[in-house]
Amino acid sequence: MIIVLKPGTTTKAAGELAEQLKETYGVQIHTSQGTQSTLLGLIGDTHKVDAEAISAYDIVESVKRVQEPYKKANRKFHPENTVIEVCGRKIGDGSLQLIAGPCSVESRDQIGGIARRVQAAGAGFLRGGAFKPRTSPYAFQGLRAEGLELLLEAKAETGMPIVTEIMSADHIDLFRDVDIIQVGARNMQNFELLKELGKLDKPILLKRGLANTIEETLMSAEYIMSGGNEKVILCERGIRTFETYTRNTLDISAVPVFKKLSHLPVVVDPSHAAGIPWLIEPLSLAAAAAGADGLIIEVHNDPPHALSDGAQCLTPDQFDKIAARILAAKKALDSLD
Amino acid sequence: MIIVLKPGTTTKAAGELAEQLKETYGVQIHTSQGTQSTLLGLIGDTHKVDAEAISAYDIVESVKRVQEPYKKANRKFHPENTVIEVCGRKIGDGSLQLIAGPCSVESRDQIGGIARRVQAAGAGFLRGGAFKPRTSPYAFQGLRAEGLELLLEAKAETGMPIVTEIMSADHIDLFRDVDIIQVGARNMQNFELLKELGKLDKPILLKRGLANTIEETLMSAEYIMSGGNEKVILCERGIRTFETYTRNTLDISAVPVFKKLSHLPVVVDPSHAAGIPWLIEPLSLAAAAAGADGLIIEVHNDPPHALSDGAQCLTPDQFDKIAARILAAKKALDSLD
Amino acid sequence: MIIVLKPGTTTKAAGELAEQLKETYGVQIHTSQGTQSTLLGLIGDTHKVDAEAISAYDIVESVKRVQEPYKKANRKFHPENTVIEVCGRKIGDGSLQLIAGPCSVESRDQIGGIARRVQAAGAGFLRGGAFKPRTSPYAFQGLRAEGLELLLEAKAETGMPIVTEIMSADHIDLFRDVDIIQVGARNMQNFELLKELGKLDKPILLKRGLANTIEETLMSAEYIMSGGNEKVILCERGIRTFETYTRNTLDISAVPVFKKLSHLPVVVDPSHAAGIPWLIEPLSLAAAAAGADGLIIEVHNDPPHALSDGAQCLTPDQFDKIAARILAAKKALDSLD
Amino acid sequence: MIIVLKPGTTTKAAGELAEQLKETYGVQIHTSQGTQSTLLGLIGDTHKVDAEAISAYDIVESVKRVQEPYKKANRKFHPENTVIEVCGRKIGDGSLQLIAGPCSVESRDQIGGIARRVQAAGAGFLRGGAFKPRTSPYAFQGLRAEGLELLLEAKAETGMPIVTEIMSADHIDLFRDVDIIQVGARNMQNFELLKELGKLDKPILLKRGLANTIEETLMSAEYIMSGGNEKVILCERGIRTFETYTRNTLDISAVPVFKKLSHLPVVVDPSHAAGIPWLIEPLSLAAAAAGADGLIIEVHNDPPHALSDGAQCLTPDQFDKIAARILAAKKALDSLD
Repeated sequence: MIIVLKPGTTTKAAGELAEQLKETYGVQIHTSQGTQSTLLGLIGDTHKVDAEAISAYDIVESVKRVQEPYKKANRKFHPENTVIEVCGRKIGDGSLQLIAGPCSVESRDQIGGIARRVQAAGAGFLRGGAFKPRTSPYAFQGLRAEGLELLLEAKAETGMPIVTEIMSADHIDLFRDVDIIQVGARNMQNFELLKELGKLDKPILLKRGLANTIEETLMSAEYIMSGGNEKVILCERGIRTFETYTRNTLDISAVPVFKKLSHLPVVVDPSHAAGIPWLIEPLSLAAAAAGADGLIIEVHNDPPHALSDGAQCLTPDQFDKIAARILAAKKALDSLD
Repeated sequence: MIIVLKPGTTTKAAGELAEQLKETYGVQIHTSQGTQSTLLGLIGDTHKVDAEAISAYDIVESVKRVQEPYKKANRKFHPENTVIEVCGRKIGDGSLQLIAGPCSVESRDQIGGIARRVQAAGAGFLRGGAFKPRTSPYAFQGLRAEGLELLLEAKAETGMPIVTEIMSADHIDLFRDVDIIQVGARNMQNFELLKELGKLDKPILLKRGLANTIEETLMSAEYIMSGGNEKVILCERGIRTFETYTRNTLDISAVPVFKKLSHLPVVVDPSHAAGIPWLIEPLSLAAAAAGADGLIIEVHNDPPHALSDGAQCLTPDQFDKIAARILAAKKALDSLD
Repeated sequence: MIIVLKPGTTTKAAGELAEQLKETYGVQIHTSQGTQSTLLGLIGDTHKVDAEAISAYDIVESVKRVQEPYKKANRKFHPENTVIEVCGRKIGDGSLQLIAGPCSVESRDQIGGIARRVQAAGAGFLRGGAFKPRTSPYAFQGLRAEGLELLLEAKAETGMPIVTEIMSADHIDLFRDVDIIQVGARNMQNFELLKELGKLDKPILLKRGLANTIEETLMSAEYIMSGGNEKVILCERGIRTFETYTRNTLDISAVPVFKKLSHLPVVVDPSHAAGIPWLIEPLSLAAAAAGADGLIIEVHNDPPHALSDGAQCLTPDQFDKIAARILAAKKALDSLD
Repeated sequence: MIIVLKPGTTTKAAGELAEQLKETYGVQIHTSQGTQSTLLGLIGDTHKVDAEAISAYDIVESVKRVQEPYKKANRKFHPENTVIEVCGRKIGDGSLQLIAGPCSVESRDQIGGIARRVQAAGAGFLRGGAFKPRTSPYAFQGLRAEGLELLLEAKAETGMPIVTEIMSADHIDLFRDVDIIQVGARNMQNFELLKELGKLDKPILLKRGLANTIEETLMSAEYIMSGGNEKVILCERGIRTFETYTRNTLDISAVPVFKKLSHLPVVVDPSHAAGIPWLIEPLSLAAAAAGADGLIIEVHNDPPHALSDGAQCLTPDQFDKIAARILAAKKALDSLD
């Protein structure tokens, strides 16, 4: 961490600040005297140093981080890929896992039928929303506890592990048999929820927030990991930009960047990123080519009558074709290595 | 609501969709046949119509809303300003309320001392964080329940009503004596929390999310209001943009736009928007001139040793001068009406 | 185009506006009377209708476009892909063209040496900047006319057609032997320049602006095409967002969206999008998988001593490996069709 | 400027780089050896040091600027406000100049009539577009040279100095009698144009680009100033964000930030920022309160028939009232100092 002092700061004031930082944070300080400004370089483990607090000193012009503020999620301290195993399926080992299913669980027939179809098409995990974050209070809010039951029935029938979203720490008990708990984009910085998930021994699929940076996403992973639960899967699902043709802008660069900065697996959600069914295939191929460990794709047997997000769903027939193409492309790309 | 059908849609298919919409939503349909596309106009109360579901029909090219999707927060259905009264102070009646205090409550002396200073300077409300949303799990997380106690002691001493942030519905019981409960930007779409707050009879200060539109903010207000609690105060606190000089970009236009679209009071938080103490005065003056009903300003007796967000705090001495200038400016502007 | 009238508009006023629109634009009008608002649907060719002017009427609440405002660039009116042929190389025919070379032309040896290396590695086009748009007036501004001479010499030697950026209509005469003229992101809405390029019979590579939508990019293509020059190549090169890890955010969705909305070829510039050399390979693979017709990649023999943008350049050795991987991946993906 | 070297860089390699930087840029180097990384601090005048080139070295992890990259526009080197005088009117002296007129000049009667009205209402400058940057090639492109003639006639009649936009360096001769030449947002980084304007002795009103940072805007001012023309007026006119209710998002913070970083005058264009007439008054009041030196406001005698941007125009009657309120508010605020 580098502290830039304001022009005109006296040597005495700079020295006092340096002493104080040494004592507070146990770091070493190197001072560089420039023609216009003096720099203090903090040496040692600075990931707990509060840059904001230092910025508040009168004599400080700016504070610049050199080290990343996350540690457990950081590849520097954990060079090998984290591989998460769920019911015999591996995420993060170089394979491409397909996670598919409807936006919302709506009925036993619906979730069961879709589960069988996506399984036949090559999906390894079943997704489905029981608790639904909806912008409007007047929109369908999910079947909630009943939806979880139906998901577990579909798992019992097909053997597919299930992925579903949690919206409040209050519901954790209901999620005890869920295989992967999803944290949605709108809750990525719901820190009270993250802390509770950090106490579990269960994989957490953490979606990047609509307006959150790559670093902030890793800090939210750090929340979960620092609590003891290191099974975090990162998910890029599009960020909010000025472009309105797509619902969000898929930040494809985030895939290789997350893989570089962190050892955690990375999956991509092309359905929510685009909000347009015909974009799912090209975005899935792009994600696979960029190194994603998995894809989350919405599939609904009857999109116009879906109770949420129908506009972005594939039908099972469409998914058949697209999954085949994606898996073939993955195989073709792997054969080049 | 207008539904644009794809070119080549048959009259029969268009008619079937129209019938179905009539039945499902109880609306009337007007059909316009263009040279390139057919339009269906939905007539009636469309705020519960699910535009996403309609978009999923094969024959639908796009869906465009005409009416706003919120009703209780909508000025069209509630033309007079909502005025919220707390301990004899009014928010929304044309006056400018100053809400001031430290980012975090740190000790009895700190909060008590600051309370007396900001009260003397003209603030009507005391703010202070007990539960703190921090990007890093290694940063100070607030005194939590103890912080609430200290705030209530400061209220008992000074008579100032208190404003403090809630981070989980689990904590609602702890907030029973809080005067105004704040929902932070990161929880603006924590819908489970909003629903619980909708059951209270207590003012909620709802901060706009970093990447949320004006309409989404009003939809979150609608969540609270549709639950029965109509005492919502909107807060503009800066949005996330590409500009990095300021921490966020204060969207000053949101003040008059919120006032036009909604009857709810609107306050501005220049401290979080800018993240820079010397910007608080010009941004506060701008907010007052644009019609804000209040300002939330961070004040700390010792910014460099603040346990959170010290970099953006004013000292009590600075606040004295700035509050005086803001209140004088408000008076001068009011005298022109 | 749909015009939403304000609540309370009289039938008479609506009728007068309808009459006026019919006369001015030669369109038909369908009127839908809703419970809260009246809609006017414009039927006919509306791409020349000025939505802004209509919005200015007192009785108009909003105007919503149904048809795209571009015609020559629109796939609806030109269903087949445009294929642009340059010196026997085709862009837009389903193949993947590599366009490679240094950010700036610096000397005869430099550009000649790089040209031979990238040609050997599989590039079909040589790029190099002679006129350089630099944020700082103190940065190297390019060799200008001399740079063009050196590029043409490299073309004479290697037979590679050249791609280079124009910054002012004043320089068009200097570009008469250039094979593809590039319009940079900062000039995408330099309409005086676009108009002049519309008078040429030469391919124009049009880069999307940093903050321009997909539609605006197509409107800038329309400027060139409406002047008579239909040889436009679109280029996605990253947009400006709040994310700061990458220089810009590559909008990978723009590739399939441009291909859907328009018949023009689409190339991707991963070097400028990312600003980081190790991201060029994954982003290139993603672009190829998403359907791009070409890639523009910066290669410099000595990145640290490059006179501009060295930080994002590959060395020729790095390009050898990456080009081989990209071309093999393209072949593998093509074999799946 | 601080250079962070990659972990594991040898002392020898660091020393060689340091030597090279000393020679190339004439700076001094301070080296700080951390536990994880080594820092090089560049001391001296670094505004011409090319951070990109340094980033390209294999051993360099990142480069962080400490000094601003602009010099002539920098308040540190020119502490007093620049005051620009035009026909006896001063911009930058603490007063608030109103610049008003139609988006486009359309006819002698139109521009003359509006000029007389806005002058009577308190405007000191007449604005009007002769060369118009329009997104669509099918939209009205301005009267061009004839428009400039009509503006000069209106000036001759009323004595009001005129402000009008240039779109190409080719047209500079036509602008010889224009009082203030405007550079539009889309041309803010048309560097060839900026260089030519730097050779004139005439005020330039430089609009911030839609996606340009405050620093980039100052760098564009630096282009003009480094050419010899120091009469630059900065203009905040809204930036592009995800919010769609307003056409752009007025970055009100840019006003005090520009004034802090630079000595140049700052004006605000609420008409283009908002795109909504009823927002002009609150945004103008906010701009005045935040310290703007002037306002540019669009006024048209017949907005629905305006040939461009009618939707955001005020009528002369509306301008009368708003100008009176703004000038009264400015007076009231000034009386507090």
